[in-house]
Amino acid sequence: MQQSVYADYNSTYPCSESHLDDLHELYRKLQGNPSSVHEFGRAAKKILEESRSHIAKFFGAEKQTIFFTSGATEANNLVVQGLMHQDARSSKDSCKILISSGEHSSIVQPCERLEQLGYCRLFKVALKKTGLIDENDLFNKLDERTKLVSLIYAHNETGCINPIPSLVEKINELCPQAHIHVDGVQAIGKMDTSWVHKSSLHSMSASAHKIGGLKGVGCLYLKSNTFLEPLIYGGGQEKKLRSGTENMPGIISFGLRAKEIMSSPSWNKKAEIVRDMFLVKLKKIPGVVIHSEGAPVLSNTVNFHIEEISGDVMMLQFDLANIAASNGSACSSGEGIPSSVLLAMGYSEWVASNSIRLSFGAGSTADDVERIISVIKQVQSS
Amino acid sequence: MQQSVYADYNSTYPCSESHLDDLHELYRKLQGNPSSVHEFGRAAKKILEESRSHIAKFFGAEKQTIFFTSGATEANNLVVQGLMHQDARSSKDSCKILISSGEHSSIVQPCERLEQLGYCRLFKVALKKTGLIDENDLFNKLDERTKLVSLIYAHNETGCINPIPSLVEKINELCPQAHIHVDGVQAIGKMDTSWVHKSSLHSMSASAHKIGGLKGVGCLYLKSNTFLEPLIYGGGQEKKLRSGTENMPGIISFGLRAKEIMSSPSWNKKAEIVRDMFLVKLKKIPGVVIHSEGAPVLSNTVNFHIEEISGDVMMLQFDLANIAASNGSACSSGEGIPSSVLLAMGYSEWVASNSIRLSFGAGSTADDVERIISVIKQVQSS
Repeated sequence: MQQSVYADYNSTYPCSESHLDDLHELYRKLQGNPSSVHEFGRAAKKILEESRSHIAKFFGAEKQTIFFTSGATEANNLVVQGLMHQDARSSKDSCKILISSGEHSSIVQPCERLEQLGYCRLFKVALKKTGLIDENDLFNKLDERTKLVSLIYAHNETGCINPIPSLVEKINELCPQAHIHVDGVQAIGKMDTSWVHKSSLHSMSASAHKIGGLKGVGCLYLKSNTFLEPLIYGGGQEKKLRSGTENMPGIISFGLRAKEIMSSPSWNKKAEIVRDMFLVKLKKIPGVVIHSEGAPVLSNTVNFHIEEISGDVMMLQFDLANIAASNGSACSSGEGIPSSVLLAMGYSEWVASNSIRLSFGAGSTADDVERIISVIKQVQSS
Repeated sequence: MQQSVYADYNSTYPCSESHLDDLHELYRKLQGNPSSVHEFGRAAKKILEESRSHIAKFFGAEKQTIFFTSGATEANNLVVQGLMHQDARSSKDSCKILISSGEHSSIVQPCERLEQLGYCRLFKVALKKTGLIDENDLFNKLDERTKLVSLIYAHNETGCINPIPSLVEKINELCPQAHIHVDGVQAIGKMDTSWVHKSSLHSMSASAHKIGGLKGVGCLYLKSNTFLEPLIYGGGQEKKLRSGTENMPGIISFGLRAKEIMSSPSWNKKAEIVRDMFLVKLKKIPGVVIHSEGAPVLSNTVNFHIEEISGDVMMLQFDLANIAASNGSACSSGEGIPSSVLLAMGYSEWVASNSIRLSFGAGSTADDVERIISVIKQVQSS
């Protein structure tokens, strides 16, 4: 069997062997509960706080702004639900949430559920054909009842990068009472986000396993003096915002990755080189339509469809050739649901159901590109 | 410096070197996202489901009853909040929660918060002097408005074991509409819980790091056809009850530990031998009062105070002698709050503030006992 090609780094960015080795070496010495006062607990607490400091640097911030969660899904839910529940029984007349039409399900689903339960009204901002947020629609929909604005920074499927720094300031100017949240999952570690703490942004979510750390851990950057009602109550960890014994292996992994990435900003450069090689070859194939062209796009991501070629057939052939690709976000792949972001960009249901996402990483090679291109050509000619 | 003595296994049960080695070996091959359809995703999904099967055996159940969470704190919150929120705006007149006075903060805190917000009324069942639930008080407090009864199986501080199997059936008989939840954190893997699935119990929480697995992962056993509103919405993982990319290293660790414990039921026998040796020596020291005597107690736990000896002084001397002990549950240790369970057992505020918990495990030795006893004697004679 041919060696596998992994081109699904946006779904999960595998840990390197050396990261797993470092973690293994470190974690075996740190087995205490950080809430315990004895030496084992203090050692765990120390590395917990060191990890928090490393991660805070992503946001140009100090460690007290970082709250660990079980992942970005929880961090996103914490903001949406934490804001809505803080005055117990807010209502759809007093409270409005504004999100883009390209948000991840971990923003869309809690918002839709809260609306169903009558806590708020939810409005979605249109996307342009490129996948970028339609700024006029966004600004027109802001009003004095807007309690939360939640926008995605770099899109997991299209890779499209919204101009978040300028949008944040404009939203804050027009609507100073609104909490501005950004889903930073695909941006953190891959783009400069050190402007965050100095900006008017209130919160941003991040996840370790999108940048080569363990699955099961993430964090919320939260500006000081921003109150959220907790989602999970108990022992009062994370300054009472998130109870439960801390996920120490996950947090140590996240901290190590933050430190490594900060000291090696070109860690993901390989992905860009390979993606660019791939794009050159892909564009020569007739019928290929690349999405989000004309917008800034994550340097490792390509989202496209090929006219009259079924996405399922393509995925099957990739699979037979041991190539890991994606036809949507991992969270909804395999479910046969058209991509909501492609629909919002104005593509047909057929396109939204038959598109492919390839996302490269540090392990990607020129040979991967050849093998992927060869499968595409083979499908097209068959 | 003398080698450390770890006698705080109820706070967190450190992973063995061999468990960490096994995990390290296994996880490096399983780096996909289990929601992805390609081979990396399928391999991750396969071990996710195998782990679920191993863990289900703790409850004498099939794998579809197991829902992974970030820990028992989340699992407990999921039950309490999931039941209260399922009919959106339940009220304090229609909805009653009954818990024992010995529950963990991850049950008490969400219940108290929901009561504050007006969703329910919370009632606490008295404890007997031994720490056991006062059954008459429990049965008297059940009525037709009781929606949730939540009881702890084995107590984290005292080790006291409630007669859960018989209590569950009696509660179900008297109050068939109530959801019966048990906090099984200290019981799972240390006691036989294979009766659970055949009983009238609706749910039980468990945590990997209390049985030698990684921190940051737990599960909820939930009987089929029991509906809970999710706490966290998004990609729809865990049959839509718990969204978010699964904590694969944590789940694999939990599964490995479940499999190991099932095939070696006496894995924690060492703890009992050492605890019993310790008890014999402890009882000879004048002024020692052992709590929960006369009740069944977890085989690894001792909770006691010594008349006129300050708990803080004892903890300081343990620390100087490199002995890890606890003066309460880790979640509240270091905060100087009297133990709520000891207060509920009728002890004075002084006793509740000056008690010590020692909990032994697979790494405990006869030498540990000698060193702990020697520190106690030294404090008493100084």
